[in-house]
Amino acid sequence: TTKKVLMLPGDGIGPEVMRQVQRVMDWMAKKRSVNFEITEGLIGGASIDAHKNPLTDETLADAMAADAVLLGAVGGPKWDDMPFDIKPERGLLKIRKEMGLFANLRPALVFDALVGASTLKEDVVKGLDIMILRELTGGIYFGQPRGIEERDGVRHGFNTLVYSEPEVERIARVAFDMAMKRDKRLCSVDKANVLESTVLWREVVERVAKDFPEVELSHMYVDNAAMQLVRNPKQFDVMVTTNMFGDILSDCAAMLTGSLGMLPSASLGAADANGARKALYEPVHGSAPDIAGQDIANPLATILSFAMMLRYSFDMGDDATLIEDAVQNVLKGGLRTADIMQPGMAKVSTTVMGESLISE
Amino acid sequence: TTKKVLMLPGDGIGPEVMRQVQRVMDWMAKKRSVNFEITEGLIGGASIDAHKNPLTDETLADAMAADAVLLGAVGGPKWDDMPFDIKPERGLLKIRKEMGLFANLRPALVFDALVGASTLKEDVVKGLDIMILRELTGGIYFGQPRGIEERDGVRHGFNTLVYSEPEVERIARVAFDMAMKRDKRLCSVDKANVLESTVLWREVVERVAKDFPEVELSHMYVDNAAMQLVRNPKQFDVMVTTNMFGDILSDCAAMLTGSLGMLPSASLGAADANGARKALYEPVHGSAPDIAGQDIANPLATILSFAMMLRYSFDMGDDATLIEDAVQNVLKGGLRTADIMQPGMAKVSTTVMGESLISE
Ligand SMILES: CC(C)[C@H](C(=O)O)[C@@H](O)C(=O)O
Ligand SMILES: CC(C)[C@H](C(=O)O)[C@@H](O)C(=O)O
Repeated sequence: TTKKVLMLPGDGIGPEVMRQVQRVMDWMAKKRSVNFEITEGLIGGASIDAHKNPLTDETLADAMAADAVLLGAVGGPKWDDMPFDIKPERGLLKIRKEMGLFANLRPALVFDALVGASTLKEDVVKGLDIMILRELTGGIYFGQPRGIEERDGVRHGFNTLVYSEPEVERIARVAFDMAMKRDKRLCSVDKANVLESTVLWREVVERVAKDFPEVELSHMYVDNAAMQLVRNPKQFDVMVTTNMFGDILSDCAAMLTGSLGMLPSASLGAADANGARKALYEPVHGSAPDIAGQDIANPLATILSFAMMLRYSFDMGDDATLIEDAVQNVLKGGLRTADIMQPGMAKVSTTVMGESLISE
Repeated sequence: TTKKVLMLPGDGIGPEVMRQVQRVMDWMAKKRSVNFEITEGLIGGASIDAHKNPLTDETLADAMAADAVLLGAVGGPKWDDMPFDIKPERGLLKIRKEMGLFANLRPALVFDALVGASTLKEDVVKGLDIMILRELTGGIYFGQPRGIEERDGVRHGFNTLVYSEPEVERIARVAFDMAMKRDKRLCSVDKANVLESTVLWREVVERVAKDFPEVELSHMYVDNAAMQLVRNPKQFDVMVTTNMFGDILSDCAAMLTGSLGMLPSASLGAADANGARKALYEPVHGSAPDIAGQDIANPLATILSFAMMLRYSFDMGDDATLIEDAVQNVLKGGLRTADIMQPGMAKVSTTVMGESLISE
């Protein structure tokens, strides 16, 4: 069967890292007889430049029709001064919302060969393997009412943090499922001592827990979670939290690994009657406009995002593992892009990293 | 003149660390002829036990009448299952709000003698000295409407993040003033690419900046700020942010230092006609119920909070420095409470640490 993949390279280093994924896909098509039907589209700044709109209806329709979407990165200083409503970020938020991608999986993984790249001491992060599950289509990112308005002559800016029971329940179920496939430990992060919205969150998570008696569930306040990630990150297996807290904690966790250029992510929707889910995969790193077009960016995070696509969208776990092992081996062999360069290693370009991965 | 200080020991280790401050105050009264008029009150769990209320009107009136308040810590498992409205935390939030303590100063400081206690590599944190300024009486902590209610048969939990221009302006002014007394660099943290409330925040900070041309102002999104704190915390001098983001980032920053038991904080109100501000000082660490009553807690964070009181409420900067230097010297001398114990050092009790400080 043909697998329809929409590629959205986006801005900055997006297109060049995407090119390396394309090569991996070509290799897989040839050597593993996988039939990819690839289309390309615009998003973010690239789409603003072409259509004055960070996500057109056409691109969105293509995304809805695809079996999976692979995104590079969006944004850059060029579009920083655009009005709030048509910034590159809007395209990203809109595609998440319209595709119903409520479950954002952000692994924070320390590769053995790169443990030295972390600012944390080796014994604190060696072997680190956390899965952060961030709710992605609700909470304060999308809550109404929102805006800036005058009240009694004074301007107020406001946003609404809101979660319904079903919204919490579905992300909680994904989290427990995930924990069952891993070390069976789940930490739900909230601020239930201050925010009623997360009192409800905690209550629903507790209820869902009854269906997963094997999973050891704990709750942690978000401020403490930020501390514990720095103090002893290895205490965590799976963490689940709201959109906003997940944004902050997953970036904090990503930085613990010291190699942002290595981290993939997946955003998944609900399963339909056939068990298929809408899905979008993207590296955790941004568009890095300062190094764009120089062939020095690290393509591995995007390639690993593609591996997540194989695993979660196409049930090709073995092929995903093949790619993940190849990444480990390339690193063991001493190849490094500039962002993860270490003394004694061989500094290579984006292109050479892609080639070496394929040789592996 | 007499300085009226209200002591609120609170729960857990609160009372025992407070006792050591009391001794420092006695010493100062004698040796430096400062006239402290000390009253004591209940807050948090201790107040719930006595009055079924985490903050009574009497205690609040005492706090309003005092020149400064010193708080130990609140909360513990004993009160964890209390209803949301009468939990120990409610007392803390109420006293902040009623006293108008909108400016929360949270220094994250690495003491030379304790640099090894951090989970981060020595070169990343040695000499770290950040001041985080957290807005403390607004934002999502206090915004209306809030609650849990049924909408079309589905339960929703909701909170409101709201800031008015004057609220942002007054915290911004404190931040710029602070930056002027330090390295003249201010980083304002928001999520202006997603939240309109922080679009207004950024706009007001920009405007206030015009009155402080010497201060170098930067803006950072909160997810990136969490990353940058882990990647290279020394890039920051003063950071200013909202109540919720400040809660998370200041705890993250505190943990970078590796010695939570050492970190003080100050919460200040607006200056009145005489230039006096309502003020509350408290250690960053919690009530640590697991070690309460064992005389092993670290009293230094609370003693350093008292030093902040001398500096910010009583204009006694020299005496504050005297205490801060004594803390440095006690550490250099090799004394450690259990939480900061290192190989080759002398482990001492809460009481002995207090005594040694006074000898210094
Ligand atoms: C670009 C921004 C809107 C986005 C977010 O806040 O979700 C990004 O930080 C992320 O985490 O993917
Ligand atoms: C106890 C809690 C309500 C409080 C807060 O969230 O402000 C605490 O975490 C703090 O930072 O002082």
